[in-house]
Amino acid sequence: MKIYLDNNATTIVDPYVFDEMEPFFVQKYGNPNSLHYFASETHAPLKEAMQKIYAGIHAPEEDSVVITSCATESNNWVFKSIYNEYVITGKKNHIIISEVEHPSIIATAKYLENLGCNVTYLPINHEGIIEADMVRDYITDKTALVSIMWANNETGAIFPVQEIGDICAEKDVLFHTDAVQAIGKTPVDVQSFNVDYLTMSAHKFHGPKGVGALYMKKGKELTPLLHGGSQMGGYRSGTLNVAGIVGMGKAMEQAIDALDFEMSDIRELRDHFEEELLKIPDTFVVTPREKRTPNTILISFRGIEGESMLWDLNRSGIAASTGSACASEDLESNPVMEAIGAEADLAHTAIRFSLSRYTTEEEIEFTLAVVKEAVDRLRGISSSYAYAPEGHESGLEAH
Amino acid sequence: MKIYLDNNATTIVDPYVFDEMEPFFVQKYGNPNSLHYFASETHAPLKEAMQKIYAGIHAPEEDSVVITSCATESNNWVFKSIYNEYVITGKKNHIIISEVEHPSIIATAKYLENLGCNVTYLPINHEGIIEADMVRDYITDKTALVSIMWANNETGAIFPVQEIGDICAEKDVLFHTDAVQAIGKTPVDVQSFNVDYLTMSAHKFHGPKGVGALYMKKGKELTPLLHGGSQMGGYRSGTLNVAGIVGMGKAMEQAIDALDFEMSDIRELRDHFEEELLKIPDTFVVTPREKRTPNTILISFRGIEGESMLWDLNRSGIAASTGSACASEDLESNPVMEAIGAEADLAHTAIRFSLSRYTTEEEIEFTLAVVKEAVDRLRGISSSYAYAPEGHESGLEAH
Repeated sequence: MKIYLDNNATTIVDPYVFDEMEPFFVQKYGNPNSLHYFASETHAPLKEAMQKIYAGIHAPEEDSVVITSCATESNNWVFKSIYNEYVITGKKNHIIISEVEHPSIIATAKYLENLGCNVTYLPINHEGIIEADMVRDYITDKTALVSIMWANNETGAIFPVQEIGDICAEKDVLFHTDAVQAIGKTPVDVQSFNVDYLTMSAHKFHGPKGVGALYMKKGKELTPLLHGGSQMGGYRSGTLNVAGIVGMGKAMEQAIDALDFEMSDIRELRDHFEEELLKIPDTFVVTPREKRTPNTILISFRGIEGESMLWDLNRSGIAASTGSACASEDLESNPVMEAIGAEADLAHTAIRFSLSRYTTEEEIEFTLAVVKEAVDRLRGISSSYAYAPEGHESGLEAH
Repeated sequence: MKIYLDNNATTIVDPYVFDEMEPFFVQKYGNPNSLHYFASETHAPLKEAMQKIYAGIHAPEEDSVVITSCATESNNWVFKSIYNEYVITGKKNHIIISEVEHPSIIATAKYLENLGCNVTYLPINHEGIIEADMVRDYITDKTALVSIMWANNETGAIFPVQEIGDICAEKDVLFHTDAVQAIGKTPVDVQSFNVDYLTMSAHKFHGPKGVGALYMKKGKELTPLLHGGSQMGGYRSGTLNVAGIVGMGKAMEQAIDALDFEMSDIRELRDHFEEELLKIPDTFVVTPREKRTPNTILISFRGIEGESMLWDLNRSGIAASTGSACASEDLESNPVMEAIGAEADLAHTAIRFSLSRYTTEEEIEFTLAVVKEAVDRLRGISSSYAYAPEGHESGLEAH
């Protein structure tokens, strides 16, 4: 049995999504920008896909949804365009992000720091959440951009995007949110929130890899990152990835259709899974369940290296993670665990389980049995667990 | 019957390529950066694909081939990284390109001009070719980069990349070539030529849309355009597009396998097609056949608007082009025709036919019949053709 519980890293392509994509490889392969039949037969499917993406985030027609190759491109685009517009020109030089943004935000911010940008990394609180008031406190008249993710990839913590958007609007500061982990897991509506830019990635909601998007509010359009043949209204050049766009559209439609199921049935399954895991002694979860996306658990098992646990799980066919796949080959401690100030021995013990609408009860029961066995085995050979003193202060509340 | 003669715009995905890609959507969907079975089952196919791409351009292992989302990204990356490294820092401020580069080069160069970069646009000669000596003449001690395409997308003209590379090496100037139209049509070998950077695009050689690459010589590595999770050795972040990369690798292998066929059989078919077209009076071809890629014809029919001809062809199921798909929605005159100084009445008459290894003799014969009929019909209703004076000077040699 193979069990996939790493859906925050990437997801299976929904078979219905693949069915919609398939004709656009060998049969309908025209370049949409050409002036003939092979081009025009792609136009209606592309239009339909774009409409589904607009509908998925409630974007009005006057705003722009621009297809990119991935969330990393969307995030880089926002930051580098803001840099060119404000920092190089000397208008403004300050950007605010959280210290637990995705690596594509953190690494880009650090790159821009070297080029003279001033970056504030807002800390998360003990629940792993950014407090909106901190954003207000740190905004100055030099602040060009606030970029705070909608939901955290590690913990699933949902950040107060609405309040932060309101503060940015009030202070006249541009607001970007990386919504990669939010779409299909919690309602995303750019009209009821004050969002100027929003990043999406198809492969996080059962679409294909290699296609993402950036939403831009009317009047806040960015200078392109990729110049060229003026595809995507001139905002992002490059031959349109027709199959990818059609796939992303269908995946968005499916994700929105499944949102209620995700928020009820998957949440229930996740909650059951988590309650059972927390019955294991010395286990810790950071963010309260109701403040998280319905599919995610980041849990620490005291005395057990995350990588050792992953190894035991993998041997039994179970895929989980110690955190972001984009950082997971480094074997570093989990950045959220570090950010909340967990001691070193706990920072290395976090395991992330992320479910999807394809996750079954049977898979969860099997995983529970494997985890329990692994905990026994690994604590049995763990020097740090054996020697942990009674009443050891963890900085985390034990469950 | 549908006949596709627009292969310089994009190509059908080879069915063998699609077969290799297919498992990586619904079956093997892991994120290669994760630490479990779903990730590791992608590693060998990815490695194999990368080896095929390296082999296809004869890149040694020590050099870098970095997967991007398209040639537009690769081209933007080179130019913007050079700008950041040389122009912003005040070291050098000059870039040399040809006036007939792809829009992703021209538009990027124009953008950088606005930011203080000095760009020389080298003219093509009467054969539609860049002369290597001109590159030497225009290089100064402020020149950071020369970027000249390997083969032109409009005419198929093969530029003297070897000589230009030698001149750049001698003058210690970085050399980039956009080889999008060369791969699979003429031998591409980065070891025997002095090439520092080379752009590729899978969908131009029967691979999928949404995946390209940039070759970088060892020691000439660029600052990333996309920062993040350090995929692709840190040079290009973003979750790997596994299906796309596997598809690009297979497509490269197939293209190299078919290179001889392309250079003999397809060339012969193209030559026959062209000879027959040139029997129509008042037709003009710019670049001599032996100086072109084996699949391309850019031909002018005096007195006939290119778009009118496209329309007649399209009604009969034949797809051709008036030039680059990336510029074709603009209905502007063909940039190569403008560049060689053709008068306005000829600049608007160019039609590009681009064949592939899937083009058949039967398709060519049918197309010839349709073209002849269209020429008669359109010249019959053309005021400009009817009134063209005898011995009219065209700036082009009539065939």
